[in-house]
Formats: sequence, C-alpha cells, structure tokens
Amino acid sequence: MVRCDEMRTSERAVPCPEANDAGLIFIGRIHTPWTSRMDCPRQGRADGPSCRIELFALWAEALEGIAEYGQLEVLYWLHQSRRDLVQQSPRDDGATRGTFALRSPVRPNPIGTSIVELMGIEGTTLVVRGLDCLDGTPLLDIKPARSVFTPLAPPTKGDSDVGEPWKRSGSCAVLPGLRRQRGHQAQPWRHTLTALISRMSANSGSSTWFGTMPSRRAPTKLPAINPAAITMTNSRLWPSTVKLRSRL
Amino acid sequence: MVRCDEMRTSERAVPCPEANDAGLIFIGRIHTPWTSRMDCPRQGRADGPSCRIELFALWAEALEGIAEYGQLEVLYWLHQSRRDLVQQSPRDDGATRGTFALRSPVRPNPIGTSIVELMGIEGTTLVVRGLDCLDGTPLLDIKPARSVFTPLAPPTKGDSDVGEPWKRSGSCAVLPGLRRQRGHQAQPWRHTLTALISRMSANSGSSTWFGTMPSRRAPTKLPAINPAAITMTNSRLWPSTVKLRSRL
Repeated sequence: MVRCDEMRTSERAVPCPEANDAGLIFIGRIHTPWTSRMDCPRQGRADGPSCRIELFALWAEALEGIAEYGQLEVLYWLHQSRRDLVQQSPRDDGATRGTFALRSPVRPNPIGTSIVELMGIEGTTLVVRGLDCLDGTPLLDIKPARSVFTPLAPPTKGDSDVGEPWKRSGSCAVLPGLRRQRGHQAQPWRHTLTALISRMSANSGSSTWFGTMPSRRAPTKLPAINPAAITMTNSRLWPSTVKLRSRL
Repeated sequence: MVRCDEMRTSERAVPCPEANDAGLIFIGRIHTPWTSRMDCPRQGRADGPSCRIELFALWAEALEGIAEYGQLEVLYWLHQSRRDLVQQSPRDDGATRGTFALRSPVRPNPIGTSIVELMGIEGTTLVVRGLDCLDGTPLLDIKPARSVFTPLAPPTKGDSDVGEPWKRSGSCAVLPGLRRQRGHQAQPWRHTLTALISRMSANSGSSTWFGTMPSRRAPTKLPAINPAAITMTNSRLWPSTVKLRSRL
C-alpha cells in the first residue's frame, strides 16, 4: 500500500484523465483515532476502536430504520490518495501488483468500503466499529450490509435470471501485463495461469484443457495444459493470450 | 426501490447540493443482460448470468495479479438514479424507509457495490457473475473481495488497535426522523428501539437499562426499559431522544 505520495521502485503511473465523469457529494465526516496515514490500519477489524460517522443534518431523515441492521456497508472518499498508479509495490521491494489486485487506498477512484458493526446512534451520528480510515475522511454512503439485507421492493424479472453452467464458458486469457515478464519474473505468470486453470477446473469439473498460444512465429498448440509445462515451454514466447477450453 | 424517477406516496426529497465535492473517472463499462431498470435484479446472485466488465485500455496494467482472487468487489456508477430522496417507499404502499436503511440505487451518491465471482479474463475484460446493474453501467473500481484478501503491505501501528468493551459505551438514541410518527406509524419506532436495545443487551451482557426521555413537560424517567412499554407510555410525546445506559 502506498502510504505517501512518492513512487516506489518499479511502480508505474499513467497520465490520469480529468476526474469529471461524475460528481460526488460529501454527506458527512468520519471520526477515527488515526490522524496519520502511517498509523491507519491496513484493514478495519470487528473488535477495533469505536469510530463516529457524523452525517450532515440535511440527510437526517435518510437514517430512519437503520438501527434494524447490525452491520452496515460504509463508503468514504480517501481524500489523500493519488490516483494515477497502475502498478504498486506494497512491500517496496521492487515486486509490483496491479492496483485492481490490491485494496490499496491509491486507485483511479479512491473510494474506501468497510463493513462495520453499528454500536449506537446519537442523533445523526452513528457509533461503529470496523473502520480503517483517517480522522476527517469524507463520507459518501451508508447502506445495510448485503449479508443482513433482504430487499423490500417487489420481485423483478431479473431476480430469477441464472447463468449457463460453467463448463460451457471455459475460456480465459492471461493478463496482458504479464507480457513484460522475464526470467525470475516469470513466476507470477505461472502463478496466475495456475490460479486461473485451477479455478476453471473446480468450476467446470474438468481438469483437462487444450488451447493455443500466439507467438511471433506459428501459434503453439497446447494439447493438454499443465501450467508448469506451459511456463517452461513458452519461457521465451511470453504470450499475451492463452485461450483455454475445457474438453467437456 | 425506486426504479424510475417519479416520487411515490410519502416519499421525501431534499434540495440536493451541487455534486462537486470530488470528481469520478469512469474506468470502463459493464455489460449485463439487463437493459431496463424494471428488469434489473434487486441483488446480484452467485449463480447469475455471466457479465462482462470492460476496462478501458489506459488501465490495463492495473489488472496484473487479479486472477489470483476468485472473488472481487466491483464499484459502479448507477447513472440513472436520482439523488435527492431521503425517504423511500420500496413497496409503494405509503410505508417509508430512510435511504441509508435501503440498498436502493437511489441515494445521494449512487454508487453500486457487488461481490462477484471471477470466471475468466479476456485481455482487459473480466467475465464475472453476481452483478445486478444495467447494461452500459460505468465502472468505478475493482478490488479483491475483503474476504479473500490479505494485505501485502507491512503491518502498521493501527493494525493492533482494538476497542473498549461494549458495556463502557452503552448509550444510544432513537432516530430524529421518528418524531413525526403517529398512531399505527408508531410501530417502526417500537421496532427500532427494540432492535437497538436487544443489540446493546447482546453486546454488553446486560438486559437491564434505565434512562430519561425528554418531553414538552418534565423528562420521563425510565427505571427499567421495556420497548413496548415505552412506546405505549410515550405515544403522545414522540421523543426525539432516549438516552440509554446499562446498569453494568
């Protein structure tokens, strides 16, 4: 997690577009024990200190009924975060991760989400546990946690839509970012492909896959994919894409 | 849930401030089977149809490593929602709820959050299940679901901060919005107070509470609170606040 604004070894930024696709309204302020980004917990904890969510008076009526929910989802604006990093090095050791594979506060839209326990309500202030943000963080939204909420609205057509069985969509691809990897940096690529294939296998009930892998020369056939084997076989190709399909 | 822009019986709006406290960047588009708000599911389901999250090319590198997470948290902008309702009537039956006690798309900052299953990755497109939004919904953020994520960053001071035992903060208040209730509409108030007291009792290990309730005349003493009794006793006072404290 990048805690201050400097970039660390191997981190990568992109030119950030103007942030004007939509606008936010700060609806309150969050008060926590943490006044420095270096002290903030990396994640909130259910037995953490009590924090106060102060809702601005304009929205008071919108709290009615909230006490029926023991757990709330809170959204807040991580106002001290830079927004342009696409690769981050949480341990500052040169090893990087994509921003969307982290829960770092540094992201294109720095919106924090926490599931908190509602301890008490004092007028328009909620006393909660489970937050991880700085004192003074702007509040964006409060909703009942999905795990404790049942919709009150009448059912809709979409409620009953279900998906196709997994084995009919057994196709995925390795992430483009992995093309850049070389030598010992191939490990994350093997790891990624292994993770994908094992999940697809678990979901489809098939552990046999075949596919093709593009290269500068002819596509490499992969009659039966073994992640380790692929990584070895193609350690010089660094394909951008591996199409996988289950035999089922 | 308010599905179109009309207001329903008993719903209440406030004059909405300019939405310029912070700006958002749309980082992609979400493609789902639902093209009408009337058809959208009220909540996503794990066995729902597969949906495609198309990330704009600028952010491609930020996906690296995401395949290691089977569950992702997705944030999106509910672009068709009005933002000024504080009380909504999901069943359109005259009974209202505060917006923050609903997961309705209509809220001051219409940000949707879903936990989805990652089924596959095709270049910069994620194939997922569990979404509930309209086709074409703007994408705001993708993060590993908190339930499957372990921070990579080194521990911080705040990680070890824990809270005081519950019995030392056994105080809460009834929501101000409840003041307006009369007659049969007192039921939600009794329900709210019951919910609060039972949660406080569970958390503090005490089931005995006392406190005072302000009124136009002298404050009413509440030697031992019985939610039902309070509701009866004070059905003409409609207090804005009930201070509660555990005997412990």
